[in-house]
This record gives sequence, structure tokens and C-alpha cells, in this order.
Amino acid sequence: MREFHPPRRILLGPGPSDADPRVLAAMAGSLIGHLDPEFLRVMDDIQSSLRLLFQTQNRLTIPISATGSAGMEAAFVNLVEPGDTVAVCINGVFGERMADIVTRCGGVLLRIEADWGHSFDPDAIRSALKVLKTVPAKILAVVHAETSTGVLTPLDAIREVLDDFPETLLLVDCVTSLGGHPVEIDKHRVDFAYSGTQKCLSCPPGLSPITASIKAIDVLRGRKNKVQSWYLDLTMVEKYWGAERTYHHTAPISMNYALREALRLIEEEGLENRWGRHRQNHQALVAGIEALGLQMLVRPENRLWSLNTVRIPDGVNDAKVRSSLLQEFGIEIGGGLGPLKGKIWRVGLMGYSSNRNNVLLFLNALETILSQDGFRAQRGAAIDAAEKAYAAKA
Amino acid sequence: MREFHPPRRILLGPGPSDADPRVLAAMAGSLIGHLDPEFLRVMDDIQSSLRLLFQTQNRLTIPISATGSAGMEAAFVNLVEPGDTVAVCINGVFGERMADIVTRCGGVLLRIEADWGHSFDPDAIRSALKVLKTVPAKILAVVHAETSTGVLTPLDAIREVLDDFPETLLLVDCVTSLGGHPVEIDKHRVDFAYSGTQKCLSCPPGLSPITASIKAIDVLRGRKNKVQSWYLDLTMVEKYWGAERTYHHTAPISMNYALREALRLIEEEGLENRWGRHRQNHQALVAGIEALGLQMLVRPENRLWSLNTVRIPDGVNDAKVRSSLLQEFGIEIGGGLGPLKGKIWRVGLMGYSSNRNNVLLFLNALETILSQDGFRAQRGAAIDAAEKAYAAKA
Repeated sequence: MREFHPPRRILLGPGPSDADPRVLAAMAGSLIGHLDPEFLRVMDDIQSSLRLLFQTQNRLTIPISATGSAGMEAAFVNLVEPGDTVAVCINGVFGERMADIVTRCGGVLLRIEADWGHSFDPDAIRSALKVLKTVPAKILAVVHAETSTGVLTPLDAIREVLDDFPETLLLVDCVTSLGGHPVEIDKHRVDFAYSGTQKCLSCPPGLSPITASIKAIDVLRGRKNKVQSWYLDLTMVEKYWGAERTYHHTAPISMNYALREALRLIEEEGLENRWGRHRQNHQALVAGIEALGLQMLVRPENRLWSLNTVRIPDGVNDAKVRSSLLQEFGIEIGGGLGPLKGKIWRVGLMGYSSNRNNVLLFLNALETILSQDGFRAQRGAAIDAAEKAYAAKA
Repeated sequence: MREFHPPRRILLGPGPSDADPRVLAAMAGSLIGHLDPEFLRVMDDIQSSLRLLFQTQNRLTIPISATGSAGMEAAFVNLVEPGDTVAVCINGVFGERMADIVTRCGGVLLRIEADWGHSFDPDAIRSALKVLKTVPAKILAVVHAETSTGVLTPLDAIREVLDDFPETLLLVDCVTSLGGHPVEIDKHRVDFAYSGTQKCLSCPPGLSPITASIKAIDVLRGRKNKVQSWYLDLTMVEKYWGAERTYHHTAPISMNYALREALRLIEEEGLENRWGRHRQNHQALVAGIEALGLQMLVRPENRLWSLNTVRIPDGVNDAKVRSSLLQEFGIEIGGGLGPLKGKIWRVGLMGYSSNRNNVLLFLNALETILSQDGFRAQRGAAIDAAEKAYAAKA
């Protein structure tokens, strides 16, 4: 094997996004033991800073030692026992994945569906939950930011629905929103949330930040059976991250260095500024896309700032465009999944990747490639529209 | 939060061991997408090189995207279904952990125990398996290198026992042996093995290399129920790593860069040379320890080269010695666990950490600290004995 030198890329796909160079540098620090007093301080710093990021007071706020998908699994294996009813809002790949995991936990699944590319009607959720007459759903699970479709599901409306079902826990996937959109765990009284490091946190994939409310911890403590996963069993993991420091597994040291530095960068920028940056770059991108004569998949009020889904125009070859972007411009974007395969592009503007230069480079590259393909657009129109959007905000 | 600068440490505990600087540098490479053609080549390189390391032709030889403990969980959740009988050889923490996971999978546990610090009598294993008259055990699980005690359980004797039980799969934990001791998966007809990156591979914690035989894959394919873990479900994970490249989770990009470089270093050194290095440093350490008048916990033929367990002499304060080693010399070693807490030190000589300078530094530091504590040893005796061992081998 020869030495590997990663090619230069601009990561504008559904994740991973580009890591901040400071995060990469921190990750390369020499190792120390996972029970070293200095590493225990790193663990404490991460927990405090994650609470600020999640906007929560939840004591149990830690990174799970695996990627975002393991965070999803941790949520369900800890809270669901065989026979429990779990309502899952499904409008894309990640809602479907939640449903799959619920059944693997022996849960009774209540599917609440919306079309891919759309959010949910709160009344439809209320009606679905009301069908359960005797025992209410133990959990309502919702994907805040559907990475497969670019849809944001506002949490305030979901919270309002759940106020009619006080026994039901609110479980939220914020993999693609945390650090890019307001998540506000305590304000929305979210009982369990999980995210990933590789989206809006400017950090490589490998950890999954989670947070659990007291109500969720009470459910965990009151379980009849052991959690089916040893690795993700929060009754043990919380003691490893807590004052007890009880050995469980060996934390991925370098990834925790990386996360700590990513959190430090977020504190430096400030949450409001960071959300503003994600919103602004999203708006400029949309202005450029529309100036090209293309259409967004999602209606304006439900669009994610972090993940933009663009309808592929008729007659344009999806794979060829994405391959040209990668090979000629070093820009990665994502294709559609499931029913949206070949129908949309997924353009991530997350964390370090969410910046003006990337928006302009991408719009220019897309315009160039589409025009080679015979697609008609006025030269420079996309960049002009994006620049106008930036100027309007300035 | 201030910038974090890891203190200088020499990691001679039970793991993580020191990562090779080339591995740390590789890990800091800029990110590329997990479906990027260049990353698919990284994945292929890793699989080929892991096969050389495990000494196997097994197609399904990949790193699980989490630490070694998740590799253990992957082994059992994929192979065990409710009601299956699983025999677990238990002589330390990691055998106990296997037993815990088996019960979480609904398996019927057959415990085969040996005292902590000892290996197994093959006849005792044979007798235990023979108790199952009608249906043989589906799996016999054994820890090749017990990190909690420093005991090596030779695989050839276990294989010989299992030749009397052809239906039983052999499952091996080689977390602390892979890359430091011969493991030889195909020679011993091991059906499933898992390891970790943070021991003898000179790589940070975060991935768990696994390998599965055709017989194990047949069991996987013949399951009646879905694997209870979505994240570790090898029926899906194998398609992500295989020719299909079907999206499952997002691989931890940077950790895979690190593992690739660690495997490249192993190929450069050569497996035989690497085992020889681990053996030689172990022998020199033992010579020094014994010259100090201390005793090893494990009898010579079952000693791990990668993890040395030393009995703490009467009257010596365990915590004080380990704290002095860390604070005065920057050397981390481990304490005992469970019944061995306060009774042994665990001195790892793994991967990059396994070298002559570390052996000499540690022996000198231990001698200095013990003499401050009133423990009598002839000044320089330990280092002299270690140097003599090195000279004898040269």
C-alpha cells in the first residue's frame, strides 16, 4: 500500500461536511489514557459545552462512542421495551430507520406518515395518537431535519400536540440540525435527542452527541429488562461519563479531542451567529438555484438551511452532473434516496462547509456543467442572484 | 474553554497504547465523502490488509465503526438468537462481559470458568460441552488475550477440543493479541473474531476489526429473526463494505485513514518481526520485574507479551505508585480489576508502545518510586536484568 493523500474536496453533500482545520489539528494530538485526570477534564468540558449547544440543563448530555446512527439506536434501545407502543413520524429515510429499530426492540409501531419532501400536519399527529385509547404511546419520535429530503419539522408545533399527551416522551433526531438550526431542547421539552458530529459541527464522523431529560432517565431506571445493547446501555455509559468514572468501554480519545475543539469553535462563533450564517448561505444558494431556473423540492417554510434539495430538471443526467462536479471541480453533492433517487440533488451547507465562497463556487460549477449539457441559463445569473441575496442581508 | 494540549505521556496501561505519529498525521488528513471513489479505495485497502493481519481469506473482514467492545457485541448479536446455547469461557472481565451480552441476546448461557490469572484446561471445556446431550452449543466463545489478567489462552488446544463438536462455532476475542501475538484465524478455523485498534495496532481507539468465516455467514443468513442491533447488523454492514456499497451508516472517515496507515506500518514491519518485538520487550520487562524481587501473576506459558501483570508487593500502596508514575514520569500503567483490584499492576507493551526505551524507563521509574517507599531493591538491578535479556536475544 502506498501512502494515502486525500484528494482536495469541497464537501457539499449530506455529510460528512468539511471539518474545520483546527478540529483536524486537535484530533492529531498525542494520545492520553481514557482514565487520565487530564482526559476526565476533556470529558467534563465536552459535557458542559454540549449542554450549551443543545440548550439544555440535562445532566445526561454526552457523546455516544459511534456515529449518529448509533445515537438513534441508543435512543430506542434504552427507552423501548417489548410491547411498548412507539409512534414514529415518517417522511424520509431516517424516519423509516427509526421504525425499523423500534421493531428490533420489540416495540409496537404506530406509523405516522407524510409524503417525502413534506413536513407533518400537527392535527394528523394528534389524531393518530388519539387512536390509542387505553394506553398512550410511550414515545413520539420525529426527525427534526430529514437529511434524505431537506425537510425541517418545526418542534414547537409537535410540542403543542404532545401537551395533550403528557405521558408520551418526545424523541428527536437532530443529526442535521444541531449547530445549524435552533434545536432548543429544554424550551421544547424534548426528552431524548441525538445528533452526529459530521454535519453542522465541522467535525469528522465518529461520535453521536445525545441528551436525555429527567423523565427519560426515569423511564430508563424503571425498565423491567436489561437494555438489549451492552455497548449503548446508558445505565452503564452514564457512570463512565459521570462522577463515578466506572470503566465501561474505552472512549475514542482522538475523536473526543476533535469534538472538544469543534465545540470550542461553536462557543467562539456563538449559536445565534452560527444559525444566521447557515440561514444566509442557504438563502443565497436558493436565490442562485432559482435564478438558474431550477426548483427547490421543499416549500420555503420547511426548508433546512443545512441541507438543500434541488429538483433535477427533466433531461439532465443526475449521475453525470454529480460526477462532473466531483471530478472537474472537486465538489461533492449527494443524490436522492428511495423514491427521490434521480429526482433531486442534496446540497449540504453545514458547519465549516457553510460559507459564501462554497455557495458561489457551487453555483458557478453547476451552471457550467448544465450549460455543457445544453441546459439553458443566462451566464452568471446564479452568482449574481446569490450575491444580491448576500448584499440584501448585509 | 481554552485550547487543549495533551500532556506528554508514555502509555503502558491496558489501552489505549501510544499511536504511531504517522497514524496521527494520517488521521488529520482533510475529509472526503464516504462514498467518494477515493474513499472506496481506502475501504478496499483496509479490508485486504486486515485479511493479512488476521491471517485469513475471509471475505467479510472489516472494521466495525465503534470501539472493540462494539466488536464483541457485533459478534453475539449477529450469531445468537433467543434460545441458542452459547458456551463462554470466563477467566476475567472480558469473558464476563461476553456472558452479559449473550443473555441480552436471549441466549442460554453455559459458563465455563477458570480462576482469574489462569487459562483453561481443554479437558474441562470438552467435559462442559459434552453435558449438552441433544443440541450442541451453537458457539464456544473464548478470550484469546484477557486484558484484565494478562492471560493468553492458546487457540490450538481450543481448536482441538472443538474438533469433537463440529457444529459449534469458535468465537474469539483478540482485542489485546491482534498485531502483538499470532492469531492465525484460518489455521485455527476461528469462525468469528474481533479486535480493537487501540492495543497492538498503534492506532487510536474508535474502530473494531472483525472477521467472519463462511460458516458464520451461513448462520447469519439462516437467522429466523432480524439482528437486534440495526447499527451492528452485518447483513447490512457487509453490503456497505462490499461491492454493492449500499448506504448504511457514515463510516468514521478519519479513523479509517488512521487504521489504513496503522496497517501499512504493520505490513512494513512484517507480522513475524512484530510478534518478535512484542515477545522480546515482554521478556526483558519480566527479567527486570523479577530482578526487582517482584512476581508476575501469570505462569510463563500463559503470559501475554502485550499486557504484563505484576503482583503488587505487600505493604506497597497501589494508587500512590501509579499516581507517582503518571505525575513524576508521565508513565501510565493500569491497576487491577474486580478480584485483582489493588493486587496487580497491568503493564501494557503494545504496538508503538512496545519498545526497549519504554521498558527501561518504566523499570527505572518503578525502582525509584518503590525505593522512596522503603521497598528494598538493588539499585540498577532491574535495568541490568532487562539489558541482559536484550543482549541474550541479540
